[in-house]
Amino acid sequence: MKAIVYHGKEDMRVESVPDPGLQSSTDVLLRVERTAICGSDLHLWHLDSPLGTDGFVVGHEFLGTVEDVGHGVATIAKGDRVLVSCTIGCGRCASCRRGVYSGCSTASQGGTVTNVFGFSPVYNGGQAEAVRVPFADVNCFKVPEALSDDQCLFLTDILPTGFMGTELAEVGAGDRVVVFGCGPVGTFAQRCAQVRGAAQVIAVDPDAGRLARAAARGCEPIDPSREDVVARVLELTGGAGVDAAIEAVGRAELVAQAAMVTRAGGRVAVIGVILAPIEVPWPIFFNKNLSVRTGLVNPQVYIPHLLPLIESGRLDPTEIISHRLPLADGRRAYEMFAAHRDNVLKVVLTP
Amino acid sequence: MKAIVYHGKEDMRVESVPDPGLQSSTDVLLRVERTAICGSDLHLWHLDSPLGTDGFVVGHEFLGTVEDVGHGVATIAKGDRVLVSCTIGCGRCASCRRGVYSGCSTASQGGTVTNVFGFSPVYNGGQAEAVRVPFADVNCFKVPEALSDDQCLFLTDILPTGFMGTELAEVGAGDRVVVFGCGPVGTFAQRCAQVRGAAQVIAVDPDAGRLARAAARGCEPIDPSREDVVARVLELTGGAGVDAAIEAVGRAELVAQAAMVTRAGGRVAVIGVILAPIEVPWPIFFNKNLSVRTGLVNPQVYIPHLLPLIESGRLDPTEIISHRLPLADGRRAYEMFAAHRDNVLKVVLTP
Amino acid sequence: MKAIVYHGKEDMRVESVPDPGLQSSTDVLLRVERTAICGSDLHLWHLDSPLGTDGFVVGHEFLGTVEDVGHGVATIAKGDRVLVSCTIGCGRCASCRRGVYSGCSTASQGGTVTNVFGFSPVYNGGQAEAVRVPFADVNCFKVPEALSDDQCLFLTDILPTGFMGTELAEVGAGDRVVVFGCGPVGTFAQRCAQVRGAAQVIAVDPDAGRLARAAARGCEPIDPSREDVVARVLELTGGAGVDAAIEAVGRAELVAQAAMVTRAGGRVAVIGVILAPIEVPWPIFFNKNLSVRTGLVNPQVYIPHLLPLIESGRLDPTEIISHRLPLADGRRAYEMFAAHRDNVLKVVLTP
Amino acid sequence: MKAIVYHGKEDMRVESVPDPGLQSSTDVLLRVERTAICGSDLHLWHLDSPLGTDGFVVGHEFLGTVEDVGHGVATIAKGDRVLVSCTIGCGRCASCRRGVYSGCSTASQGGTVTNVFGFSPVYNGGQAEAVRVPFADVNCFKVPEALSDDQCLFLTDILPTGFMGTELAEVGAGDRVVVFGCGPVGTFAQRCAQVRGAAQVIAVDPDAGRLARAAARGCEPIDPSREDVVARVLELTGGAGVDAAIEAVGRAELVAQAAMVTRAGGRVAVIGVILAPIEVPWPIFFNKNLSVRTGLVNPQVYIPHLLPLIESGRLDPTEIISHRLPLADGRRAYEMFAAHRDNVLKVVLTP
Repeated sequence: MKAIVYHGKEDMRVESVPDPGLQSSTDVLLRVERTAICGSDLHLWHLDSPLGTDGFVVGHEFLGTVEDVGHGVATIAKGDRVLVSCTIGCGRCASCRRGVYSGCSTASQGGTVTNVFGFSPVYNGGQAEAVRVPFADVNCFKVPEALSDDQCLFLTDILPTGFMGTELAEVGAGDRVVVFGCGPVGTFAQRCAQVRGAAQVIAVDPDAGRLARAAARGCEPIDPSREDVVARVLELTGGAGVDAAIEAVGRAELVAQAAMVTRAGGRVAVIGVILAPIEVPWPIFFNKNLSVRTGLVNPQVYIPHLLPLIESGRLDPTEIISHRLPLADGRRAYEMFAAHRDNVLKVVLTP
Repeated sequence: MKAIVYHGKEDMRVESVPDPGLQSSTDVLLRVERTAICGSDLHLWHLDSPLGTDGFVVGHEFLGTVEDVGHGVATIAKGDRVLVSCTIGCGRCASCRRGVYSGCSTASQGGTVTNVFGFSPVYNGGQAEAVRVPFADVNCFKVPEALSDDQCLFLTDILPTGFMGTELAEVGAGDRVVVFGCGPVGTFAQRCAQVRGAAQVIAVDPDAGRLARAAARGCEPIDPSREDVVARVLELTGGAGVDAAIEAVGRAELVAQAAMVTRAGGRVAVIGVILAPIEVPWPIFFNKNLSVRTGLVNPQVYIPHLLPLIESGRLDPTEIISHRLPLADGRRAYEMFAAHRDNVLKVVLTP
Repeated sequence: MKAIVYHGKEDMRVESVPDPGLQSSTDVLLRVERTAICGSDLHLWHLDSPLGTDGFVVGHEFLGTVEDVGHGVATIAKGDRVLVSCTIGCGRCASCRRGVYSGCSTASQGGTVTNVFGFSPVYNGGQAEAVRVPFADVNCFKVPEALSDDQCLFLTDILPTGFMGTELAEVGAGDRVVVFGCGPVGTFAQRCAQVRGAAQVIAVDPDAGRLARAAARGCEPIDPSREDVVARVLELTGGAGVDAAIEAVGRAELVAQAAMVTRAGGRVAVIGVILAPIEVPWPIFFNKNLSVRTGLVNPQVYIPHLLPLIESGRLDPTEIISHRLPLADGRRAYEMFAAHRDNVLKVVLTP
Repeated sequence: MKAIVYHGKEDMRVESVPDPGLQSSTDVLLRVERTAICGSDLHLWHLDSPLGTDGFVVGHEFLGTVEDVGHGVATIAKGDRVLVSCTIGCGRCASCRRGVYSGCSTASQGGTVTNVFGFSPVYNGGQAEAVRVPFADVNCFKVPEALSDDQCLFLTDILPTGFMGTELAEVGAGDRVVVFGCGPVGTFAQRCAQVRGAAQVIAVDPDAGRLARAAARGCEPIDPSREDVVARVLELTGGAGVDAAIEAVGRAELVAQAAMVTRAGGRVAVIGVILAPIEVPWPIFFNKNLSVRTGLVNPQVYIPHLLPLIESGRLDPTEIISHRLPLADGRRAYEMFAAHRDNVLKVVLTP
């Protein structure tokens, strides 16, 4: 089959690879119909050296039709249209029972592999014509008949990630919220904050186009290249600061800014990916009694909340799709996405 | 001054009564500018005998301008435009410190009086030209300059009551919710459920006009005089039942219906006022692991969440105002409200 | 094999019945080594007519050794010593994913059977030499090597039920708590309240022996046949009332008493089983802003919290065992337990 | 009167200063009967330069008898024996209403002063014969007659701080917990974790004496100078890591260690004081979905939970008192405490 394969820094190639097959009785085999490139795929793109290995299929946002089913799978049948959680849980270990599938000791093989699709040969990704999905009863979710592929695709990762931001920041009715970043994840964090009853959502991004879209969806925009973010957030909140801040970019200095604009007793969530140690202005967190939370998303936990919101029309995740390309153009798609060319926001690939 | 005075069953009279004055250093005196009649005032209207006393001023939804200030008041000044919580707390006792102002042992004088305005001579009500407000630092909230009296009036009781319904029923993002009743409180419960991210709000009321308004605000309407409520709610939720049910009428059989339409592990809130023992179908609650909560509203707790939502335009409480009358027509207003005449939903009185 | 079989009111018989076998790939077959009679078994004992059927094996508190394993079971192996949750969940449906296994739509067959062992022929019980356990990955829990059968047996139902009482009543550090009932479930509710940091646990029971044991474990005893419970609880709490009340008997009037002794804003949990509609003094719940919760226990949720407490010695569930009998004496055991003879508190049966 | 006065680094002097008096109608004047030196006083001791000012009285842990009362004080009377919260709140501002007294905009004068006793001339401290207490209704708590000064003294700061650690780390029944530090605050964090039902409390400290006391109170001790802390915690928890980690020392590397030993989805609380930016190993927090919380203590919130636990004997805060000295020996007390001489754990001073 055709698939996008990782070969090291800035080297993703569309190649022919062997078709995947079932490896365990709890697997299903999925014929991929839609897949997307995620900001976290770019972390891989930018990684200087391979992860000790290469040659694996990338991609962790995908949905399609079930083609083959292990005999130990109870709830998913051949022919089902399903979306798949990017994070893989077994559903049985202590961590999965707590709802922390990302900490699954079974799927992570005791911590020796990353239990997310598309980051190692153990779990080849879904930027491909087909993909093996382990623990299918846990990680597959049926797509409702009334919904399109595009409406459900982002339930695999970034819509739950945006929602997780509002969960970790405990966004509630009447809250004032700031979201750093108006990319795909920031967009969804802003939408979810609105859905949960935020009275005010402030959006920060230096990209004029993204910021304009944030304003169009009801956010108060701040361009950090033109305004002092801290001063402006305080001004917009009557000096009080926000109740909750969500970092959706992945930069250490924004974690510090988030703390600076949050009121005493407020909450900071970091859903941008930061892969290195960072310096934190601890006295701000201490003097203001802040909580800070971060983590990998567990779509399994949030999908039951998000799917009804899509069904009822309160959320329309397709708003972020800026480009559609065939899977065969995967390399070009990565290059465009990495370079932020053509006002790219989100690229959907079709095998 | 002129005031509406309780003289027993179905006997509210607009009369001249002595002007109130400060009684304690923590009091303020308020010149009333807007007041409204509440469904719970009708409980008084229908009461067969007086409460062991009569001759007191009724009304617990009011706002106005501060005219005199006790020397122990720190945060409210003469000339402030304030709205007043219907429930009176001292802010210091154990119950107030927990946020349960309705259980205030100081204001309730150890349980010997009702610490709500307008139910006894101890706390004469606000359907009057002026009213004494005790513990003003705790119970007065400044009206933002940008907001009108009408926008803020219902923060005194029924908007927080509707919000309390969604709090007690723990309405969250993606939830399916049913609200029994489309009167003023039910309307606000529906709006608050939507603000908090409910994916579906089902509204039940036999009044065609009220039901049509609920449908217009995005609820799915059920007329219990024409449909089997339980069957219809199950149908609308794909057989699953709702996550949360809010009773906003005050009838025992609706508490039972609420339990019948709620899924296992769901939540039932009863914000309608029920003044007598009721029979409860306990096995339903037991078999479905339900929680049930009820209580008097504590606007002090909810106003900080609701005011920003009004300021941002996400809630417009004026939608329920159906009639405006001078205070002098108070008796007629009560009669109309008690008789459900003229499609009355909410009557605002102006002294 | 030998088993205790239900034949109608007050008619439990030890009989030979066919050996159970695996019916589904997710089943295991358990050789029972310890089983106990529960207060809820007595509801069956007292039921006037059979449940539309008879001839099934009773009992839902049991543990033993796995003898046969379906090929779809991932985490339980032949020879494992396991305890089994009394409530049966599939682990996959919407209700199980929420942790409400008692509402499992799969195991309850859409509500047509009770998904608890020993209440119908669909799930024959464990007062037998062997038992089929469905969805073994979800409902079996391995017994740690360091623990005895007796230490783990009550994790199947009543220790989690007692703990659930403290969960539903939100017992926290410094709380004042009353527990109605000093039987097995009441005992565990008291112990769990202490473990969670209650400052005061008041125990109510007319049985002098049970009350003395409650006093010995640090509770303040009230004998309702000799004292006015409401007055005495208020006295013991300095007039304040308790923060949390737990009904562990199953009588409507105790639900009312629980409300009467609870402070404004407090929590009432009902873990005693009440099988009929009850009259509730609603105005007390309303005036005091109480929450009331009840339900079937989901041991799957609480075992991860309770097992470490047994392992560390903070809880010793064996304290309630008053009698040990062979399974062959099952009928006599039921008669003794139903008649409250011989100071019986809990009977353990050994096949 | 005599008081301990700050004059710069390592320069605390017992001096005669003018008697304090009431400044506002909400003040009381307290005759101090017991006061203690806190670890955070040592931060002041070690500060290189004065805080832009000097000559103020230090100390924020004290109790005594009320000698004079402002006419705006409602609940405290002359002659009352009261303990005083170290953090000063007005009880009225938005932050105080949320329970975040440490963020009080009134008492902190909009952020221009520290609203803790003994850190500036605005709020002279209580290591003195007398002290002015602002907003007495909010910050004074009556000492129950049955309790001694020593039992209540630490409710002013460090017992609530230890409890806050267990709150921020959400310690619950059955949890495995590690506490870094066995000083006064660590001791109380350990005790509170036990009270809240921790199944296992691991204590880390290089001081052999402190560690032995931790072991005597039921903790599992780790000496970081002799053992690899991370490896040992994992070993003690069967490889699982702890559910909750509490840093009670105030060192950046312990924050990192706390993250390393905590399970996926666990909670880290930092109650040790860290006054500079720190480097944080962010990927550990991200990969394990950790929450981190810190902050100044708000005793007002925790005292209602802690006082009943002292009254019932479940907590005995006097266990940490190692030395008692007259106030006149204050300088010697500071020197001893700063040098960790004489196995000092906590010094109580008597004016």
